[in-house]
Amino acid sequence: MSDNGPSDRRRIFSLRTSRMEAFSDGIFAIASTLLVLDLAVPRVGPDVAQKLHDQWPIYLAYLVSFLSIGQAWLNHSVITEYLDRADSILLRLNLVLLFFVSLLPFPTHLIAEYLRTENAERIAVTVYGLNLLAISAFTSILWHYAVAEHLVRQGDREGDVRALTTKLDPSLASYAVAIGLGLLWPNAAVVLYLVIALFVIIPFRTVFRRIRPGRTRHRVGRE
Amino acid sequence: MSDNGPSDRRRIFSLRTSRMEAFSDGIFAIASTLLVLDLAVPRVGPDVAQKLHDQWPIYLAYLVSFLSIGQAWLNHSVITEYLDRADSILLRLNLVLLFFVSLLPFPTHLIAEYLRTENAERIAVTVYGLNLLAISAFTSILWHYAVAEHLVRQGDREGDVRALTTKLDPSLASYAVAIGLGLLWPNAAVVLYLVIALFVIIPFRTVFRRIRPGRTRHRVGRE
Amino acid sequence: MSDNGPSDRRRIFSLRTSRMEAFSDGIFAIASTLLVLDLAVPRVGPDVAQKLHDQWPIYLAYLVSFLSIGQAWLNHSVITEYLDRADSILLRLNLVLLFFVSLLPFPTHLIAEYLRTENAERIAVTVYGLNLLAISAFTSILWHYAVAEHLVRQGDREGDVRALTTKLDPSLASYAVAIGLGLLWPNAAVVLYLVIALFVIIPFRTVFRRIRPGRTRHRVGRE
Amino acid sequence: MSDNGPSDRRRIFSLRTSRMEAFSDGIFAIASTLLVLDLAVPRVGPDVAQKLHDQWPIYLAYLVSFLSIGQAWLNHSVITEYLDRADSILLRLNLVLLFFVSLLPFPTHLIAEYLRTENAERIAVTVYGLNLLAISAFTSILWHYAVAEHLVRQGDREGDVRALTTKLDPSLASYAVAIGLGLLWPNAAVVLYLVIALFVIIPFRTVFRRIRPGRTRHRVGRE
Repeated sequence: MSDNGPSDRRRIFSLRTSRMEAFSDGIFAIASTLLVLDLAVPRVGPDVAQKLHDQWPIYLAYLVSFLSIGQAWLNHSVITEYLDRADSILLRLNLVLLFFVSLLPFPTHLIAEYLRTENAERIAVTVYGLNLLAISAFTSILWHYAVAEHLVRQGDREGDVRALTTKLDPSLASYAVAIGLGLLWPNAAVVLYLVIALFVIIPFRTVFRRIRPGRTRHRVGRE
Repeated sequence: MSDNGPSDRRRIFSLRTSRMEAFSDGIFAIASTLLVLDLAVPRVGPDVAQKLHDQWPIYLAYLVSFLSIGQAWLNHSVITEYLDRADSILLRLNLVLLFFVSLLPFPTHLIAEYLRTENAERIAVTVYGLNLLAISAFTSILWHYAVAEHLVRQGDREGDVRALTTKLDPSLASYAVAIGLGLLWPNAAVVLYLVIALFVIIPFRTVFRRIRPGRTRHRVGRE
Repeated sequence: MSDNGPSDRRRIFSLRTSRMEAFSDGIFAIASTLLVLDLAVPRVGPDVAQKLHDQWPIYLAYLVSFLSIGQAWLNHSVITEYLDRADSILLRLNLVLLFFVSLLPFPTHLIAEYLRTENAERIAVTVYGLNLLAISAFTSILWHYAVAEHLVRQGDREGDVRALTTKLDPSLASYAVAIGLGLLWPNAAVVLYLVIALFVIIPFRTVFRRIRPGRTRHRVGRE
Repeated sequence: MSDNGPSDRRRIFSLRTSRMEAFSDGIFAIASTLLVLDLAVPRVGPDVAQKLHDQWPIYLAYLVSFLSIGQAWLNHSVITEYLDRADSILLRLNLVLLFFVSLLPFPTHLIAEYLRTENAERIAVTVYGLNLLAISAFTSILWHYAVAEHLVRQGDREGDVRALTTKLDPSLASYAVAIGLGLLWPNAAVVLYLVIALFVIIPFRTVFRRIRPGRTRHRVGRE
């Protein structure tokens, strides 16, 4: 269509977002399902119930990781909802984000293994926090890049963009605080990671708005 | 399009269902395929055939789990077939459902490991039943929420909704019964889980209707 | 749209094929990628090259399984290409097919483990052959069911259906022969499975047709 | 539509590219996520930090492999962006490419295991390089085949094709050089693989073009 030379190379990278979405969904799904392989089955014995019970840190780490990946997926799917097309750099930023998502089973495993050994636990919790921070940071970067480069759909501007930005950026700050906290009290940091994940998973604001009487019932579809 | 402030935040979460479907399909597919990793290969020896034969509880657990995930996927895909769009809470309910789907390989592993040790077996079968119950319960919740919030496609109302509801709710009751039964006779519960799964997988009603002579041949397409 | 009662239940199961395709693609992809976990890395030592070399039966089993799943995927994607919609029974037949696809890593592992022990090898090769036969059989059943129930797209009839049928049914016979052969000479059966897979993967007929001079160059697109 | 006999068989294989994309995305996603299973967690002890630190070759191999699969996925998604439809041979070439993608976790594991043992390391690095070369080669073959057989979308010709070709072919040469280098200095080869992967992941040309002042801001959408 266009015949001015320099844009040829650029057009190569102006892609539909469908494959970026499919590849991302694949990695999000696999990373969250691989976590289950860490839930070890204790050997048969008279105290199986006790042993299963003692594994609670592993279950907790599993839950926090699943919720954190779920939260990252939610944010990611909101972002792609707005994307009109992808460009060369966006796809690569997305790859970096997916790298950290696919990495999360490793620090989860570290935490599960080390949660009761003081020094090792501090290392595990810090690595875990840095991984969550990286996921959160690259989600924000992805979004800010898409907005700055006008890759979002026309007509969806202003209010939405601000709303999503106010949603993405606070998690970043929370993770930074939690990592610092984890250097002093590792256990507290894990609980905090759970709280952050729950805060995003449970849409408090929406739930509260519903409980309030007289809320406006109509809803704006996507046309 | 709409410019009244309060709906901005809400519009963010009125999403296409395509990514929710893709992410769900990914988790259903991986959870059901990871199960195969539990099928251990006995060491070479003169009695390999015997050892493989003795593993039948593992094969049974594998089969029941695959069918249960398959059944959950069938129900889930019928639900999304009706969904017009997703909202903030629906996506999160879906995440909780997927959490329990991705967890199923763990109690499957427990059952395979403990099926011949009395006390441990009871624990394993109960955990397994609770997991199946949770999957079934959140599938129902997802459907009832979608119907209550008018997220289903216009014009597909009434008859269909009732038909799907009558299909989803009985499994819930069956699982509750099976869990109770499993506290007394764990083995019986496993057989019951197989029966429940087979009952949904094999569409008896449809098959019987076909066998009856003179059935109406025409079929209503989707237009 | 339609208001005659008995068709309500049936309409529930007249689904788009998109989720059936996505779920199937997921299971095909995972089953074929999980196979790589069986390729064990020998411990470091002066004879690493030798040890890696001695693992050739594992590589062979890996290759045959990957190609067999690839072949099943090719046939499956040709079938869904013709499908107009799915019904209740088709989805369940598809689940049974996917069950056997997701199972294949297990007999692959058996073969890799037992390939040099006479008696165990016979068992492994037979189980492997039965699995391949089941995949092939349910692919055929799926296709014949879709054709018999008029679920294929209008206007794609006759010639195409016959062509695909002549393509699917011979593999069935080949697997039956190979399983019988495997009871006598297990090694020969593995080679035969490789040949069957290669025969489908390498489109000899197409290749030969191209090599022949003067072939018709035009190609019929899908409009 | 067309009724001339010989084209019947051919039409079977003129497929939409959607399932080829979905299956490929699945395998790319799983292969890159399975890599994380190789990141072993050292046993608890006073020197956990040291042990984790000593694992750097494993982290490096993980990173290089993730980036290499990411790079292959980027190229693959650019290719399918241009594809209008798939034919019989293209699907099979794609299967061979996916075979090598799904294989990559194995030589990655080899490298991680052998990186400090001189002779074994040479073998591991060479096998790894051959695997990367095969991925790169079959990506190029896929593209050249699609162009030669006129499977690419009409109107996207000339400039784009040349641009993508100049992008794909140099990696091939780099891998060949790196494999030769690895026979002499295995460590250098691993670093070189990282550089090659980074070179494709980081779009230097695009980044530099942006830094240059006065660049043309407009961008050509896909209409």
